[in-house]
Amino acid sequence: MDSRPSPQGVVAGSIPLFAGHPAHELLPIAAVREIVDSIWAQADRTRLFNYGDEQGNRQLIDFLAARLQRSENLAVCRENVMIIGGSTWGVDMITHHLAEPGDTILVDAPSYRDALHIFRDAKLDVESIAIGAGGVAVDEMERRLRDLASRGRLPKFYYVVPNFQNPTGITLSRERRQAIVDLSKAYGFAIVEDDVYRDIRFVDDLPPSFYASSRGENVLRLGTFSKTLAPGLRIGWLIGSAETVERFVSSGMLRMGGGANPFTAAIVADYCSSGRWEEHVVWLRNQYKYRRDCALAALDAAMPHSAQWTRPDGGYFIWLRLPENVTVDELEGLAKAENVYFASGKGFFVHPEEGAHHLRLSFSYVPLEDLKSGIAILGRVVQTARRQRKASRARRK
Amino acid sequence: MDSRPSPQGVVAGSIPLFAGHPAHELLPIAAVREIVDSIWAQADRTRLFNYGDEQGNRQLIDFLAARLQRSENLAVCRENVMIIGGSTWGVDMITHHLAEPGDTILVDAPSYRDALHIFRDAKLDVESIAIGAGGVAVDEMERRLRDLASRGRLPKFYYVVPNFQNPTGITLSRERRQAIVDLSKAYGFAIVEDDVYRDIRFVDDLPPSFYASSRGENVLRLGTFSKTLAPGLRIGWLIGSAETVERFVSSGMLRMGGGANPFTAAIVADYCSSGRWEEHVVWLRNQYKYRRDCALAALDAAMPHSAQWTRPDGGYFIWLRLPENVTVDELEGLAKAENVYFASGKGFFVHPEEGAHHLRLSFSYVPLEDLKSGIAILGRVVQTARRQRKASRARRK
Repeated sequence: MDSRPSPQGVVAGSIPLFAGHPAHELLPIAAVREIVDSIWAQADRTRLFNYGDEQGNRQLIDFLAARLQRSENLAVCRENVMIIGGSTWGVDMITHHLAEPGDTILVDAPSYRDALHIFRDAKLDVESIAIGAGGVAVDEMERRLRDLASRGRLPKFYYVVPNFQNPTGITLSRERRQAIVDLSKAYGFAIVEDDVYRDIRFVDDLPPSFYASSRGENVLRLGTFSKTLAPGLRIGWLIGSAETVERFVSSGMLRMGGGANPFTAAIVADYCSSGRWEEHVVWLRNQYKYRRDCALAALDAAMPHSAQWTRPDGGYFIWLRLPENVTVDELEGLAKAENVYFASGKGFFVHPEEGAHHLRLSFSYVPLEDLKSGIAILGRVVQTARRQRKASRARRK
Repeated sequence: MDSRPSPQGVVAGSIPLFAGHPAHELLPIAAVREIVDSIWAQADRTRLFNYGDEQGNRQLIDFLAARLQRSENLAVCRENVMIIGGSTWGVDMITHHLAEPGDTILVDAPSYRDALHIFRDAKLDVESIAIGAGGVAVDEMERRLRDLASRGRLPKFYYVVPNFQNPTGITLSRERRQAIVDLSKAYGFAIVEDDVYRDIRFVDDLPPSFYASSRGENVLRLGTFSKTLAPGLRIGWLIGSAETVERFVSSGMLRMGGGANPFTAAIVADYCSSGRWEEHVVWLRNQYKYRRDCALAALDAAMPHSAQWTRPDGGYFIWLRLPENVTVDELEGLAKAENVYFASGKGFFVHPEEGAHHLRLSFSYVPLEDLKSGIAILGRVVQTARRQRKASRARRK
């Protein structure tokens, strides 16, 4: 364990397998330092300390537009990109621009816990649709849309983490993406594509993004440097139609505060322009891939056959389904006694009971040795819970 | 003029008297550099690059709580303070937490333009009450509240910049503050005290803040380092009751993104802890006071007697009332032809026509020589407009 202040309720020396943070040892601090050192010599450095353009750092916008053109053959230009203070800023801003209290939106079940929290704070009516191996059940989505339409409750948007989803690690298939784009056109809802894990991929190819499939129409796609550089710099980006970006850029929020984090955006821009970010991303993929492999090997060794888990092609997370007779609530208590913490599945559902037998493991944050030993402990604890349950059932007979 | 990208519609070489930015030459870049250089040697520097505590940088919170206790004798402890990404973040967050689309709020007329823009974006029903020399007209506020109560439309909050208001430079009197606290209790609305200019004061004493007068009950007070350190670091603070701070800290927005800007918050914390911020603030007051004096002297020399303007005791702004027969629209065209830009009064009112004869001048941003020559040009232009108006009236007779 390291010296980071422990999140609530976690004691020092514990193994926080719940934390969706990048590992401290994978943050490129020395390179960031070199970039920062070079900033002081720039003739226009003072600019970085005043209010910035509402759309964000121009150099970074141009870098991102060129990268999207090059790597995904996307028809994106400067007008389609804005810099934001992390993808959280984007989710919050989009939520308040697209929906009002009482409006309906669609999400996956399970879906990203903290985004659900933002939607709850905004008093939205959140409809969730189960996901499986290839992502959300499109047939069920269509049935739900027909029902919502009949009640005049059509959703304002569908929020999705399409690649290596948080919490399941599942990637939405190409076919389902296309079907969802068709549904979004037929039923007139926007797609909010929170693509924060795209660059942490362990496979060569990904299905085209919603933004690509719909040619940017009615899709807002979010990206971030939090997973591939450093969350503490609070820099991400949003891509959308020129009209939508202009609408955000001319909002009161941006008129008042200026563009996102001018000082750290300049650091990120120089880091990217130097070519180091893309080098770092390639290195990072191997690091996280190795961590995933270790986590999967540890699960194979430790878990009973009646437990099941995902094998993600990227991202930070593995989703585990406990043996039928073991609940995540009882497991939480048992694991806590062993100083191991995970994210209960219940937090990722609109209806928490749907997650009563699930948990999310993060392989991104804890040191490798803790990852292995934490999973080994968890396996023992699951076995213990299973035996206890069997014994108590036997007693009742 | 300097190399900062010109805000929309302003050409290089012009005099932007509209800009509510700190002057580039008053940003303490060298000191910030020293602080940043010292961060690399810290044992726990890695923490600054990962997600931070939701409440924000602990060192900075403790510094601010101690300073508020010391300088204002405020009963404030750690639980009453959170760090935010500039006061804009605070206004936006408070707006969405306290009000829903269609809800009523109260503001001054005129009031801070970009805050009005945030309230419009949030689809609030904004009721504005005229202000004069001592601030908002409390009698009128009470009448308005009675009327709103009778229609079941009581406001959720009153938004106010109590010290050296943006745009007028007016400070709300002690008596009116107390009367407004009484009204807030009688009618059950919160007070959002946007106290961003407090530290840029040219007088020794200020009336007690709303937060002090109400002992923190139902008041949210915002502060910022944007006016006294550097806007580009995007760091401010919010003080409120422990319950309210806890509510914000546990929101989805903060759970998802972590606390405000960990890297720059650490820079600001070290800068403050070193004692340099308070030294800088003392120096800055003299700098801005001198700028205000120059601006007032230039106005005295350049403006016709039929123009009137405020003499602020702090802050960044002077509010000017044009001669009765001159409108801000015609003046805008004439001044633009001379490369001088100001903020039209119309943007600061819920009902823009109320500002048809007003403008805001900022003495904070442009170099001193430009401040003097810009106001001299503006004076000539006002005289020209007045003569043209008289001549055209004479022709019509």
